[in-house]
Order: sequence, then structure tokens, then C-alpha cells
Amino acid sequence: MVAELTALRDQIDEIDKALLELLAKRLHLVAAVGEVKSCHGLPIYVPEREAAMLASSRKEAENIGVPPDLIEDVLRRVMRESYVSENDKGFKTLRPELRPIVIIGGNGQMGRVFNRLLTLSGYQVKVLDQGDWPQAEQLLTNAGMVIVSVPIHVTEQVISRLPALPDDCILVDLASVKNRPLNAMLAVHGGPVLGLHPMFGPDVGSVAKQVVVYCDGRQPEAYQWLLEQLQVWGARLHRISALEHDQNMAFIQALRHFTTFAYGLHLAEENVQLEQLLALSSPIYRLELAMIGRLFAQDPQLYADIIMSSEENIALIKRYYQRFGEAIKLLEHNNKQAFIESFQKVARWFGIYAQRFLVESRTLLWQVNDSRK
Amino acid sequence: MVAELTALRDQIDEIDKALLELLAKRLHLVAAVGEVKSCHGLPIYVPEREAAMLASSRKEAENIGVPPDLIEDVLRRVMRESYVSENDKGFKTLRPELRPIVIIGGNGQMGRVFNRLLTLSGYQVKVLDQGDWPQAEQLLTNAGMVIVSVPIHVTEQVISRLPALPDDCILVDLASVKNRPLNAMLAVHGGPVLGLHPMFGPDVGSVAKQVVVYCDGRQPEAYQWLLEQLQVWGARLHRISALEHDQNMAFIQALRHFTTFAYGLHLAEENVQLEQLLALSSPIYRLELAMIGRLFAQDPQLYADIIMSSEENIALIKRYYQRFGEAIKLLEHNNKQAFIESFQKVARWFGIYAQRFLVESRTLLWQVNDSRK
Repeated sequence: MVAELTALRDQIDEIDKALLELLAKRLHLVAAVGEVKSCHGLPIYVPEREAAMLASSRKEAENIGVPPDLIEDVLRRVMRESYVSENDKGFKTLRPELRPIVIIGGNGQMGRVFNRLLTLSGYQVKVLDQGDWPQAEQLLTNAGMVIVSVPIHVTEQVISRLPALPDDCILVDLASVKNRPLNAMLAVHGGPVLGLHPMFGPDVGSVAKQVVVYCDGRQPEAYQWLLEQLQVWGARLHRISALEHDQNMAFIQALRHFTTFAYGLHLAEENVQLEQLLALSSPIYRLELAMIGRLFAQDPQLYADIIMSSEENIALIKRYYQRFGEAIKLLEHNNKQAFIESFQKVARWFGIYAQRFLVESRTLLWQVNDSRK
Repeated sequence: MVAELTALRDQIDEIDKALLELLAKRLHLVAAVGEVKSCHGLPIYVPEREAAMLASSRKEAENIGVPPDLIEDVLRRVMRESYVSENDKGFKTLRPELRPIVIIGGNGQMGRVFNRLLTLSGYQVKVLDQGDWPQAEQLLTNAGMVIVSVPIHVTEQVISRLPALPDDCILVDLASVKNRPLNAMLAVHGGPVLGLHPMFGPDVGSVAKQVVVYCDGRQPEAYQWLLEQLQVWGARLHRISALEHDQNMAFIQALRHFTTFAYGLHLAEENVQLEQLLALSSPIYRLELAMIGRLFAQDPQLYADIIMSSEENIALIKRYYQRFGEAIKLLEHNNKQAFIESFQKVARWFGIYAQRFLVESRTLLWQVNDSRK
């Protein structure tokens, strides 16, 4: 029995070696694709090519009796690596004649991401950091583009400190709130103005498939090339007005971060035994616990800034608190029927999304389980 | 340029075909391993074998310039498929002399999972469903094991309805709460009693790596084989007292489900535009929305039962509500410093777990991004 198992396992190990060699070859080919794309300014993420490749592999898989989801998951994982590696090859310079780009706060985490990508795309990038303000006028006098990438709570203040910029200079900010920074930029600069909100953290391996939200400020024709440059990096663009952006972010950021904060606070004050919770956890709870805990490994100032960026955020959080209190009343007198009716009402509101989310998260929970050690 | 790209892509497609063939071969070998294991009653999930295989592939990967995380992720995904396929081959019968097993509620979702696994393991399984109570005495008179797998709110009632069971019959329940069902079983039956809580949903492809929590009732030596049988299926066992189980589940289930419910309720009452939120979402928010929405694709009765299973659960939820109210006070007068201090206190409480969760969830968020269409 042991001999039989060992023989089979040796064969599996051989296959895994062959698998590894194929992956190595594939990464080399993808690197070559990256170079061709870089020369010609083609985007590294092409949804149609990806979809076609996956569809053909799924079909092929069915023919030879491999579960199509298996090959799709494997290829998607391999493609992530490909995007990261295409990412290193440099990108086409869509605006070669642009004068230097100055990133204010360019040594911060997000500033460094943009510095790297712009440099890889052939632009001349300069950094204006906290200590460099005495030289600001000199640094900015010839700027083709200025990117403000500083903590939210100083964004407007930094913008108002800017010396006069060349008329055709593009002024951009990267803050997670958009309305006030955009207005501040429009107030100090008469030229092209653009608000960007990259919907990813600085630890992202590649911008491929990541969403960048943008809010037009002034003279969009002047920064059209920048939006295209973002697409060359693989980003998906989403255009929205600054006000609508902030309304949506009240949910996506402020409310979510605050409820996560409150949940973490509650766990800490109840002083639960984290190890025991984890030992007992299903994949879904482990994931939910991780989503709470991860907040507290990050910068509290950033979260304070995001949550307290507007009165509307706080009002939304208070309405949530009030509804929570009303929901608790459903639990009193063990009134299951009332709870069930309320639940069904929400289910109707979610509509087809409830089922869609269930299916989507199932795949993900399998992945969480795959990673268990 | 087009020709150059096409040539490279053709080569990539060739590699993907070869990849597919390797995967097909690997699945066949794994099926053969499954048959050997099934004959000898070996567990389908062997953590040491898995860890050794991954470590050796990672090393090999480094040698040939493939990122070790890539091969580890690919192999983990492939192994999931392997567990599912080993799962179909049948399992060794650890207790061949056992008289028939009766699953009360065996046509329910979780009942069917156990029916399938026990049948695949060579046991004779009978089902006692709602309409079968007139035949209950006859069905149960010769039972070697009785598994109660009915909705929580009827579990105790079903247990109290049981006719006398043979003295050596093992009585087991699968409810998500453990203290009251376990006491109910101990009260009606003088023989071996065991409480099980499978920490996974009925849609799980394989039990491999899934946690099954167990609470000893009476005569553990009589059901030791069942715990081993669960391990043959690949489960990880976790032993705990029924009281401690329920205390932990107040957090893992009741509080978590209720806050998710309240969040969904809030989104519905605010009537947010889900499509717009999704279009703007970073992977993390998409995931969080999915975790909320998925609740509402499920059975409200189950959640009502879990949340309202004890006064302690409701008390815990009320304490959370109170703390949430206190946390809101941190937001008044724009008091960022107070928020930051409170945040840091929680971060200290999470200790090394905050960073660990950040790293763990990062991998997962990449996977969410991989799956974007």
C-alpha cells in the first residue's frame, strides 16, 4: 500500500515539475508580449483577449474532462502574475512633449506608486516633499503636471499654498474625497484641473483591472492623454461628478470603515479569545474577522480623515445607528416572525444581487479554505 | 506588430493546452490515490503531505525563476479539485458492524450531505422525514446511530419526541447551537450521546479541511470511530464544551449575522444604487458588499433561530449597540485625536493578528480582483 502510494505520488511530483516549467515558459512569453505592448502603447489589460482566452480554455477543458472552473481559476491566477510582470517592462509615453511632472507628497505610499508608473512611462518626475516648500516656486515654475498626493486632512491646505502654475499645467489630486479638493484646485489654478481617486491601496502589485474614479474639473481635452495613460497601465476608468462620488463614498468608505472600527472596538472590550474564535471559524467567519482586524494594521489618521471628511458621513452613520436600534426591537419578545418579514423585505430589495453575491462569495470562500494551513 | 503579438499569443495558447493536459493527468493520478486511500481508510487530507509538496514546489520554483507564491496558489487550487474528486471514490467503513443509521431530517440540505458521505463510506442509511413519524418506532428500533438534522427551532422538540432507542445506539445532533440540544439528548437517551456542529454550509464541495466542532455528551469511547470517520473524510475536529461553544458562537454567528442583517436593512432603507456602488468599488468593498448581500439569499428562519437562540446572544448584540453609540461620540466636535487613540487601543488589542490579517486578506483581495470580469 505504501509502495503503491509512493509510486503515484512520485508521478504527481513529476507532473508538478512539468507544470512549473510550463509556467516559467509562459511568464517569459508574457514578458515578450509586454515589451511589444510597451513599444506600441497598448494597454496591458485587454478584457476581450482575456475573455476569449478563458472561453477557449474552458471549452478545451470540457473536451478532455477537466472541470472548466479549475482551468479558469488557474489561468486567472497566472494572468495576475503576467500583469505584474508586464508592469515592469515600461509603458509607452503618450505625451512625450510634457514638461516635468511634480508629485507633491511623492515620497508617500500612493505618491511612490504614481512616481514609479510615470517614470516607467518615460516622464520626468520630480518630488516636492514637506521639507521642499522653500524651493516650491522653482520646482513648479516649469511643471507640465502637478499631482497632489498628501493626507486628506492637509490636501486643501497644500493646494491653497501652491504658487502660480503655468497656464497649461494640469493640476491633479488623488484624495479619497473629491468635492472640496476639486473646488480648492479650481480656485487656485485657472488651467486644466482633474480629480482622481485610485480605488486601490499602495500595496497593489499592478494597476491592471483596478478602478480609478475621475471627476472632471476644467479643460478635459488637456488631460485626456492622462486618462489614456492610466488605461495603458491597465486601469478601468469610472467617471462621476465630485458630489456623487462623495455621496457614494459615504457608504463605500465612511460607513463601512466606521462600522468595522466599532466592531473591532467591541471585540476588544469584550476581550474575546481570538485564537479560540479562529480555531472554531468557518471560512466565512475567518474572512470576516480578517476584514475587521486588517483595519487596525493601518493608519488611523487616514480613517479619521475619511470618516470625518463631511457632516453627511456622520449623519449617515447616525442613521445606521438608529436603524440598528430599531432592528434590535425585532429581537425582543422573541419575535421571529417580525425579523423574518424584515429580512425578506431586504432580500427583495437586493433582488438578483443576493443570489449573485452568494455564488460569487462561494468561490471566494473556497479560496479561503484552499489557503488554510 | 500585430503579427508579432499573434505569434506570441499562439505560443501562449499552446502552453495553455499543455497545461490543461497536465492537469487532466494529475486529476487521474489523484483519483488513483483516492482509491488506494479509500481501500485503506486513510484520510483524504494529510496536512504534512500537503505542506511538504508545497515546500518542495516553492523551492523548485525559485530555482527556475517562477514566483513561489504563484505555484503555491496554483497547486492549492488544483488540490481543492483533488479533494473533491477523492471524495467521490468512497471511503473506508471504519465500523462495518454498525446497524442502520437513521437521519432525522435526512432530506434537508445538511442531512443530505451526511447521508451521501455515510453511504459512500459503506453504511446503511435510512431517512426519517416529517411525514414518517408514524413509522418512527419501527425505523428506530434497530438503529445503530441516530442523527438529528432538523431546523434549530424544532431540534429540542424532535429530540423529545424520540421513542426509546437501543441502549448502544449513538444519538447525535448537528445543530448550530449545542448546549440545549445536547442536554435534551442526554435527557431522552441513556446511551452514547454526541453533539456535532459542522462549520460549513451544505454547498461545500468536499469536507476536506472543513472544521467540525464536537461536544462530548456520554460514552465517548462508543463514538470514537465516528470522529475518526469524519477525519477520513478530511475534516478537522475541534473539541469544546457545549457552553463554551455557544459563548463563542454568540460572536461567530449571532452578533455577526445580526450586524450583517442591520447593514443590509440600512442599505435597503437608504435605497442606495447598488450598481453604482459596485462600479465604484475597490475589491475590498465589493467583497464586503457580497458578504452582506449573500445573507439575504439564504433562509431567514435559520438566521432568526441562530440569533434568538439565547438571551446571551441578544445581550451581546445590545452591548455592541451601546458601544457603537459611544463610538459615535468620538465623531462629534470633529475629535480626530480621540478617534485615533481609541483606534490605537484596539490595534494593540489585536496585536500581531492585525498585521497577519492584513497580509492574509491581501492575498484574498488579489483573488477577488483576479475574478473581475
